[in-house]
Amino acid sequence: MTTQSLAYVNGEIVPISEAKISLLDWGFLHSDATYDVAHVWEGHFFHLTEHLDRYYAGMEKLRMSIPYNKAQLTALLLQLVAQSGLRHAYVEMITTRGQPEPGSRDPRTCSNQFFAFVVPFVWISQPDQGLHIAISQQQRIPTESVDPTIKNYHWLDLVMGQFEAYDRGAQTAAVVDANGNIKEGPGFNIFIIKDSQLFTTAEGVLLGITRQTAIQLAQQLGMQVVFGEVSADAFRNADETFATSTAGGIMAITQVDDNVIGDGQIGPLTQQLKDAYWAMHKQPNYATEVVYESEP
Amino acid sequence: MTTQSLAYVNGEIVPISEAKISLLDWGFLHSDATYDVAHVWEGHFFHLTEHLDRYYAGMEKLRMSIPYNKAQLTALLLQLVAQSGLRHAYVEMITTRGQPEPGSRDPRTCSNQFFAFVVPFVWISQPDQGLHIAISQQQRIPTESVDPTIKNYHWLDLVMGQFEAYDRGAQTAAVVDANGNIKEGPGFNIFIIKDSQLFTTAEGVLLGITRQTAIQLAQQLGMQVVFGEVSADAFRNADETFATSTAGGIMAITQVDDNVIGDGQIGPLTQQLKDAYWAMHKQPNYATEVVYESEP
Repeated sequence: MTTQSLAYVNGEIVPISEAKISLLDWGFLHSDATYDVAHVWEGHFFHLTEHLDRYYAGMEKLRMSIPYNKAQLTALLLQLVAQSGLRHAYVEMITTRGQPEPGSRDPRTCSNQFFAFVVPFVWISQPDQGLHIAISQQQRIPTESVDPTIKNYHWLDLVMGQFEAYDRGAQTAAVVDANGNIKEGPGFNIFIIKDSQLFTTAEGVLLGITRQTAIQLAQQLGMQVVFGEVSADAFRNADETFATSTAGGIMAITQVDDNVIGDGQIGPLTQQLKDAYWAMHKQPNYATEVVYESEP
Repeated sequence: MTTQSLAYVNGEIVPISEAKISLLDWGFLHSDATYDVAHVWEGHFFHLTEHLDRYYAGMEKLRMSIPYNKAQLTALLLQLVAQSGLRHAYVEMITTRGQPEPGSRDPRTCSNQFFAFVVPFVWISQPDQGLHIAISQQQRIPTESVDPTIKNYHWLDLVMGQFEAYDRGAQTAAVVDANGNIKEGPGFNIFIIKDSQLFTTAEGVLLGITRQTAIQLAQQLGMQVVFGEVSADAFRNADETFATSTAGGIMAITQVDDNVIGDGQIGPLTQQLKDAYWAMHKQPNYATEVVYESEP
């Protein structure tokens, strides 16, 4: 069976090349939008309920709505993935403010728009490689300006951090807060391990679903998880450190700035968490099966 | 002659209803874009050079480029407006990051995209009315996170401020910094007049072209212009106060929270500045004429 990237736009499933949004939609012109990304692994959505819960909570905070409840949206996403034929996929659902009435600047006059698309699985980092991260000067947009629990497209801080990382020979960036503490990277949360304890940033970051899964798995493995600030020094001098994202799961970080972490290989606790993460995908209570039209 | 809103997309002029951007363009998915808006008044662009200078400077800071130099872009925008037939228009030019190579997350692999559109002139506030503004709790995204001199679509702080303003019976919002000082509103800078002196926020705001024009006109009228922080109290207790934007020019603010400003009418100095602003549109050195195909 051939596979193809697809999108759901204006109530229709279309090839990804035809997936477009109006230039005048405030989802674009004001980045007035929220979204979520779930992944499909071996033909099953992982943690779909959690992604939908966060997505609907974000819409409510932005005073947006779509004409589907969670069950209807689940059915729609299952159909979209089934039709794509993709067994390993990255599935994004988006709500935008829409367009105001002509001449109006009032967001209350907008009709919110829903979009979704499915593309092949995206890896922030190749699964057998460690990431090299530069700690950027760039400050993450603070919670007081944009609530990070609303998953949003305000990424210019992360993009500028990424360019800074490239300039310094790294693969991607960690951005910081006003005190220089580590916040997150472009699309991922950051964890460090020191003396077998797991540390992660508590505030001012996206509450990642993969972050939450890593915390749960670490606790199941008997590790203590500490929530607080992670300093740049602690990050550089970690025993192990990793990134979490729906786009790749749990991914080892093996270099921070000029500091090689451990022996530069994926650390033993990170490997354990990573194995547990992928094993979890086979547990029926976290997996939602996609019923494909014909087997490949 | 009939007029119509038009857009320039993929190298072609199309009706605005067909103006679309790919859902996968990072201009949308990461709000990785910069833009500028110029206006056309009585068939002439106003201050087009300044808008183009800011637009190209923003692109450079974001490491983006378009295949037009300023002269070519001017010709393109003049053609777009001429073809629309609109004598009073709002003209937006946009550069987006574009799409990365399949599977890549590297912005350097993207081919930047250019868009423009022309729609009828937009007024933030009707010219004969004063604005009622609420001072929002919402903090403007700080300079350390996103450089405000790069005109950008990171508006969720402004949008949330706007909803807060509606809840409190106001028309629009002013957002603040971490110290509670006034920054700007959704699409406009803010000025206050106290004892015949003009005050405006120096840092952490968009360097508006209309803001710059208001400063220049005030100085020509013999007013002293003070750059610094504007406190919430100073805003509420101003003798006069106004907003500046390409979408409407110099617009009186006549109520801040529950405080009526002056006698609730457009103040005399604001009126003088406003008159000078519109008179300036007739000066050839600030105006770029659109040559329409046929007179109406």
